[in-house]
Amino acid sequence: MTVTAAVDLPSGSPARVETPAPGDPRLARLSLNQKTVDGWSLAHAVAGCVAHGLPSIGVWREPVAEVGLAAAVRMVRDAGLRVSSVCRGGFFTTADPSRRRERHDDNRRALDEAAELGAPCLVLVPGGLPDGDRDLPGARARAAEAIEALVPHAIEVGVQLAIEPMHPIFAADRGVVSTLGQALDVAEPLPAEAVGVVVDTFHVWWEPGVEEQIARAAGRIASYQVCEWITPLPPDALLSRGMMGDGHIDFAHLTACVAAAGYRGDVEVEIFNADVWAADGDAVVDTLARRYVELVEPHL
Amino acid sequence: MTVTAAVDLPSGSPARVETPAPGDPRLARLSLNQKTVDGWSLAHAVAGCVAHGLPSIGVWREPVAEVGLAAAVRMVRDAGLRVSSVCRGGFFTTADPSRRRERHDDNRRALDEAAELGAPCLVLVPGGLPDGDRDLPGARARAAEAIEALVPHAIEVGVQLAIEPMHPIFAADRGVVSTLGQALDVAEPLPAEAVGVVVDTFHVWWEPGVEEQIARAAGRIASYQVCEWITPLPPDALLSRGMMGDGHIDFAHLTACVAAAGYRGDVEVEIFNADVWAADGDAVVDTLARRYVELVEPHL
Repeated sequence: MTVTAAVDLPSGSPARVETPAPGDPRLARLSLNQKTVDGWSLAHAVAGCVAHGLPSIGVWREPVAEVGLAAAVRMVRDAGLRVSSVCRGGFFTTADPSRRRERHDDNRRALDEAAELGAPCLVLVPGGLPDGDRDLPGARARAAEAIEALVPHAIEVGVQLAIEPMHPIFAADRGVVSTLGQALDVAEPLPAEAVGVVVDTFHVWWEPGVEEQIARAAGRIASYQVCEWITPLPPDALLSRGMMGDGHIDFAHLTACVAAAGYRGDVEVEIFNADVWAADGDAVVDTLARRYVELVEPHL
Repeated sequence: MTVTAAVDLPSGSPARVETPAPGDPRLARLSLNQKTVDGWSLAHAVAGCVAHGLPSIGVWREPVAEVGLAAAVRMVRDAGLRVSSVCRGGFFTTADPSRRRERHDDNRRALDEAAELGAPCLVLVPGGLPDGDRDLPGARARAAEAIEALVPHAIEVGVQLAIEPMHPIFAADRGVVSTLGQALDVAEPLPAEAVGVVVDTFHVWWEPGVEEQIARAAGRIASYQVCEWITPLPPDALLSRGMMGDGHIDFAHLTACVAAAGYRGDVEVEIFNADVWAADGDAVVDTLARRYVELVEPHL
C-alpha cells in the first residue's frame, strides 16, 4: 500500500490530511464503488477495501458475472464487507415492445442479484434517447413506466430501485432523467421502500434549488455518491469526473443537506476518469479516503 | 457561393432541401450569429448575410470594436440588415467590489453599443464560479443583483437585457444560471422592457418542463437561438454545438413552444464548433439556411 496521492493536488484544493488507518471510525460509512479502480477485478477491489479499511463496496454487475454471483457473494461476505449498491439496472427508454420486455426481465435479474449480494439498492441509469428519436418527454415517460413496472419485484426481493438523475450532459445518450426534482417526480407516486433516488454530487451539484430537492428526498435517498466536477472538462464526457477537492463542488454543503434529510447509509466514491484509472489503484483509494475524511465525513 | 453542405449529413438527419434564394419569405426572420462563421470579419459576415439573403445578424462586441462602433453601425445599416442581438455582456459573478464596478461599467457600455447598433437586446452570459469559490448559490445571487443594477440604464437606452441560461455543462466556468426557469426567477421581478431571457435550444432542450417555462417566458423572450446537441460530444465542451438536424433536439417542438409564447423576433443560428469553423463560411451559411427552412421556420 502506498500513501502517494493518485492525483496531484491543484492550487486551491484542501490541505492533505493523514491517511486514516483501518478501523478509524471516520471510515465507517465509506464505500468504494469498484468503477473507481476500473483496472481491479472484484477480488482485487474487495481486498483493497479491506486493506484500506473501507467497510463497504459498490459493485458492478459485469465483474460480478465474471466470477459468478455465488462466488461474488462469498467473496464480499468472507471479507466482512457491506455491498452499498449494485450498478446498474435501467436503460428503459426503448419504444420497441420486445426490447422493453427484455429490459424488464434483465432488471428483474439485477434486482435478484442485488438481493443475493445483500445490497440495499439497485442503481438505475435511465438510458438515453433511442437512435433517431428526438422525443425527450416520450423517452422520460417510458422510463417512468418501466420503473413502476418493477415495483412489485423490488418489494418481493427487498431491494430499493434507485433512480439516478444524471447531469444534462448525458440527457441524449445515457440518462433522460436530468434533475433530482425530476427523479423525485417519478419516485414519489411509488412506495418509498421500492423506489428511491441516488444523490450523486457530480450529477446534481449545479441544480437550482438542489437543497430543497434533497430535503424533499428525505426517506427516499437510496445512495449518496460523491465525486467532483472539474474544469476544463476532460475530452471524453463519460470520463469527466474528478477526485473530491480537485474541482468546484461544495461537498460540505451538499453533504450537510443529505445528512439533514436523514440519510444514514454508506457514501460511495464513484469516479470515472482516465487519469484516475491509469493511476495505481492503491494510491487512488488512499487519496479518496483522505479526501473523504477531510471534505465529506465531517458533514455527515 | 457554393451549395455544398458544410457538414456531412449523418444517417437519420432530414432530407436536404433546396437552398432558399435571397428574398425567399422563409428567410424573413433568419439571423446569422457571426460567431457561427468565426473566421469572418464583421464586414465579411455582413456581406455573407446579404449574399445568402439573411436579413439579420447577431454581432459580437470584439469584431465590432475591431472596426469601431460607428463604422460597424454604418456597415449594417448600409447593408440593410437588422442587428438581432449583441453578444455579449454579463460575467457578473466576481465578489470583488472594484471588479464588480468594472463589470457594471463595461455592461453599461455594452448596452450603449447595442443601442447604437439598433439591437433590441444585449445577451448576458452570467459568468462562472470565481477561482476557488464553491458557493454556487452565492454566485447566482451576485449575478441577479448585478442584472438588477443595470435595469435603469437598459430602460434609458431602450435595450433589453437578455439573460442566457446556459447548459449545466458550463455552470462552473461560464454561466451559473442553468435553466430557463432560473433565468425567469431572476427576470420576473424586473420590468419586462428591461430584462428578458434567451431561449437557446442547445442550452435548454433537456430541461424538464421546458415547455411550461417557455410559456412562462411569454413577453420576456428577448432572443431565440438555435443550434444542436450532438453526440458524441466534441472534446472541447465550449465548441460542442452542432448544426441543426445533426443531433438530438426536437426543433419543431421547441420552436412551436416559442411561437406559442408570442415570440415574433429574429431567429439566430449560433454554432460554436471546430469543424464548422474550419469549413468554408459560405457553405456553412448555405447549410444553416437550408436546415433552418426545413426544421425551424415551418414551426414559427
